[in-house]
Amino acid sequence: MQNMPDATPAVPFPGRRVLIVGGVAGGASCAARLRRLDETAEIVVFDRGPYVAFANCGLPYFVGDVIADEAKLLVASPELFRDRFNIAVHTDADVVGIDPAARTIAVRDVTTGTERTERYDVLVLSPGAAPIRPALPGIDRPGVFAVRNIPDSRRIRAWITERHAQTAVVVGGGFIGLEMVENLRHRGLDVTLLEKLPQVMPPLDPEMAEPLAEHLESKGVHLRLGDGLARIDEGADGRLAVVAESGAVYQADLVILALGVKPETALARAAGLAIGERDGIRVDAQMRTSDPHIWAVGDVVEVPDVLLGQITVLPLAGPANRQGRVAAESIAGRPTHFRGIQATAVVGVLGLTVASTGASEKGLRRAGVTCFERIYLHPGHHAGYYPGARPIHLKLIFSVPDGRILGAQAVGEEGAEKRIDVIATAIQFGGTVHDLAEAELCYAPQFGAAKDPVNLAGMLAQNVLNGDMPVADWNALDTATSFLVDVREPAEFAAGHIAGAVNLPLSQMRHRYRELPTDRELVVYCGVGQRAYFASRFLAQHGYRSRNLSGGMATSRGFRRG
Amino acid sequence: MQNMPDATPAVPFPGRRVLIVGGVAGGASCAARLRRLDETAEIVVFDRGPYVAFANCGLPYFVGDVIADEAKLLVASPELFRDRFNIAVHTDADVVGIDPAARTIAVRDVTTGTERTERYDVLVLSPGAAPIRPALPGIDRPGVFAVRNIPDSRRIRAWITERHAQTAVVVGGGFIGLEMVENLRHRGLDVTLLEKLPQVMPPLDPEMAEPLAEHLESKGVHLRLGDGLARIDEGADGRLAVVAESGAVYQADLVILALGVKPETALARAAGLAIGERDGIRVDAQMRTSDPHIWAVGDVVEVPDVLLGQITVLPLAGPANRQGRVAAESIAGRPTHFRGIQATAVVGVLGLTVASTGASEKGLRRAGVTCFERIYLHPGHHAGYYPGARPIHLKLIFSVPDGRILGAQAVGEEGAEKRIDVIATAIQFGGTVHDLAEAELCYAPQFGAAKDPVNLAGMLAQNVLNGDMPVADWNALDTATSFLVDVREPAEFAAGHIAGAVNLPLSQMRHRYRELPTDRELVVYCGVGQRAYFASRFLAQHGYRSRNLSGGMATSRGFRRG
Repeated sequence: MQNMPDATPAVPFPGRRVLIVGGVAGGASCAARLRRLDETAEIVVFDRGPYVAFANCGLPYFVGDVIADEAKLLVASPELFRDRFNIAVHTDADVVGIDPAARTIAVRDVTTGTERTERYDVLVLSPGAAPIRPALPGIDRPGVFAVRNIPDSRRIRAWITERHAQTAVVVGGGFIGLEMVENLRHRGLDVTLLEKLPQVMPPLDPEMAEPLAEHLESKGVHLRLGDGLARIDEGADGRLAVVAESGAVYQADLVILALGVKPETALARAAGLAIGERDGIRVDAQMRTSDPHIWAVGDVVEVPDVLLGQITVLPLAGPANRQGRVAAESIAGRPTHFRGIQATAVVGVLGLTVASTGASEKGLRRAGVTCFERIYLHPGHHAGYYPGARPIHLKLIFSVPDGRILGAQAVGEEGAEKRIDVIATAIQFGGTVHDLAEAELCYAPQFGAAKDPVNLAGMLAQNVLNGDMPVADWNALDTATSFLVDVREPAEFAAGHIAGAVNLPLSQMRHRYRELPTDRELVVYCGVGQRAYFASRFLAQHGYRSRNLSGGMATSRGFRRG
Repeated sequence: MQNMPDATPAVPFPGRRVLIVGGVAGGASCAARLRRLDETAEIVVFDRGPYVAFANCGLPYFVGDVIADEAKLLVASPELFRDRFNIAVHTDADVVGIDPAARTIAVRDVTTGTERTERYDVLVLSPGAAPIRPALPGIDRPGVFAVRNIPDSRRIRAWITERHAQTAVVVGGGFIGLEMVENLRHRGLDVTLLEKLPQVMPPLDPEMAEPLAEHLESKGVHLRLGDGLARIDEGADGRLAVVAESGAVYQADLVILALGVKPETALARAAGLAIGERDGIRVDAQMRTSDPHIWAVGDVVEVPDVLLGQITVLPLAGPANRQGRVAAESIAGRPTHFRGIQATAVVGVLGLTVASTGASEKGLRRAGVTCFERIYLHPGHHAGYYPGARPIHLKLIFSVPDGRILGAQAVGEEGAEKRIDVIATAIQFGGTVHDLAEAELCYAPQFGAAKDPVNLAGMLAQNVLNGDMPVADWNALDTATSFLVDVREPAEFAAGHIAGAVNLPLSQMRHRYRELPTDRELVVYCGVGQRAYFASRFLAQHGYRSRNLSGGMATSRGFRRG
């Protein structure tokens, strides 16, 4: 065990000058990692803002005063970079041009306006992505904010405090939009969320976004789905009047624009670097651009989606950090590669956790993939006999007939992101639903179940794959022509059921199944899917053809809106 | 997507009589699964106790009144088995003999004492494992309890209430012992934990058990390690006097025996079934015993450990349930197999979570495996800039030089079991530390970090594998001959350090490194390992040989006791 390997491998060209444009996430990671691999390089980081290495994922929580101390957001100071890593950091230094032939960059000092030229042997671009700001009337009014950096956040905090802001409109229901909703609510504001799509959280399939929408409304958020921003007028008493495309008007003390981001490619374009079809910088698996002396990392680059085999952009901190690491290893002459992304993500909103990994059903359809199935389940986050179990709404999408896991989405108060992390790991290995069924996970009553939600998801999918439980397509459900059988108890049926269904409780199935028609396919459902599964197994063995409405009534609510 | 598969496959022999001995976990799973696959079989479950399908993992919490309602422990009643599954359940029915030649079992009615014979085509044994009860003086005194079933638990509850019990001794510091400690503390008792080994939680390596031991003591538990039970005498005022092997005497109102369990093989032995070297019933991958008409599942069987390639016994509910499922599939004539176990487990104790998966270091040594390394880290359970981050003490063990993950152990207040679940999943796929470094997991400030603890563990292990960070062996650390360098700041050094270490802070390393000797290997450490890693990378590139004390001071405490 006490193997002492050879000395650290020699770097390709000692003493190189490595310039890094952008000192957050990918850029900062790259700088620190490169120093650990190459003591000889001169490493200089430029950032147009006043800070490097700040926690941009923390900004909404700084606005919300959950993170009250701004200094907490500063993960590493220029002094630390200098003393610990011998890395020079220039803040307020905007890189405005690249001359690839001369291998120089033009740097403008933001405070003085003066410009200078810096020579490089290696250049790393990590400029990030800019909030999308559509050219709509009034978009630049005071009180309209995007959330990208510490000064932005500071301005929003000040505006709320100084104006005694009481109402806000958040435009855009993605990650940042939802986190801003949570934090504005946390500060006591009345919040309206305007989202052009008919659902919140675009990475989710619409039916999985429904529990989140209900949760937002239950927390007093005014949800306006399917309506975009038209313009922002001057409102009463110095407030803003947010006018939606529908014509609806919302008075607000402030407006948050959270319409997504676009890669900041202007510098790269001007330098003639290849830009891909998704408008990000094109890089190889070593994060090298079309210029052999220039690497690029983070939100500005295009990356391969390992599930769809497509090129995409994914502005998330985890991949950005790993890309910075890969670029550093590549620059240091080490074998390395970025494996692509699978779009694992999570957001917490007012006590609810929404997590997903891999492809969504709508993403697969857009990509023309059709040979897949999906199941829904709603298990407790831990054993039901232990107090406090809360449901996790879980969707698993898998390839047919090989069972390869394609994606998963989870919504719940507790334990949702744990299950997505496990499924994300299985996806990383090209795992199948059979692997999920067999997974050996932590179980004690307060942590999980003897059959963990992940196991259950795998087992349900196995039932679909091997024909034990054919599933019906919720989207194609025709209540007029289907023979719908609700196998819940009469009291449950009476409290609400799918239109046209007949009630034949599972508890009476063994005596009454002959009441059902044998000449047509039955569509069977219950509360969450378990009793319907038992019923369908019974019916199949008694000569009936049936399909299961996976997830039962608990899933049906997702198909009601819109 | 609307593939309607062929009808369910025909069962091999319709109308068979399938008898199942033991109606908890594996037995109950097998019965219910078999019914879903075979409507023709006659399925009968026998249990010697008054209940089937009860939540045995919930028993300590029932004793502790966390689960106040006994009915919560009953997952499924005999009536539900009958009405829903057409499965007959006989409780208070003790199976006392098997005649494999005649294919009959002898069943004794526990209430009447009468015996009858039942014929089978297929027999499934799921008798479980019995608490170990060493033949020590006084072990059968009233007030000495084991925790196996609902009547046991009810008796303990009654004893505590009726005697106004104030003090307890728990003998054995494994899963059940620790859960009983928590629950007795929860009921306000003063608890002494007596454990013969020098550590609690035997599945953990000793240094990883240390944070748990400290936690127990901080919660007022009297920990007596390295001392076994000698006898139980009559104490003062009708109490019990627990005498340890050391001669120490502990007065107690009740004693819990939690010394582990042993497979209940008497019935199988008497029937001539093959018993393995670990004293469990020997089964094949389809859970079939040496008799082709008899299957066995759950705590009574021996199973292959997928990491060590050894046969073992593992009395846990997750594997038992999956084995029941596999047995049912095998009986129904379907292709199936049990993949073996990797010993994933978790226990919650008074606010601390302890989880592990795969092989421990001591397990590897016992098995004669030497080509492995291990690293320690203590990251926050979520981003440090978000309030409330709590450390996870994490140990990762991996194969050298291929990097295959062999095992992991985690101890922390939050998020420990999530990381073990992710690593367990990677182990299931034969994953390496490189895979952990690349894992794309959920990140938002309140859930994780851009580099999740799992990523960090993988990256640290990569550093060891590729020679970037050779690690020293904590167990072999000789403070007299090693040149120990503490790279923390002077104030931290002054507050406590490893004997003999010199202090050269990382922040001064670049100016002062020439003070260190070049003619010998340095052993570098810091608080948790990060600064020492930075120092060792610097030193390696300046011609120094160094090794890292992985995990730093936070790990060192684990090597102090004993």
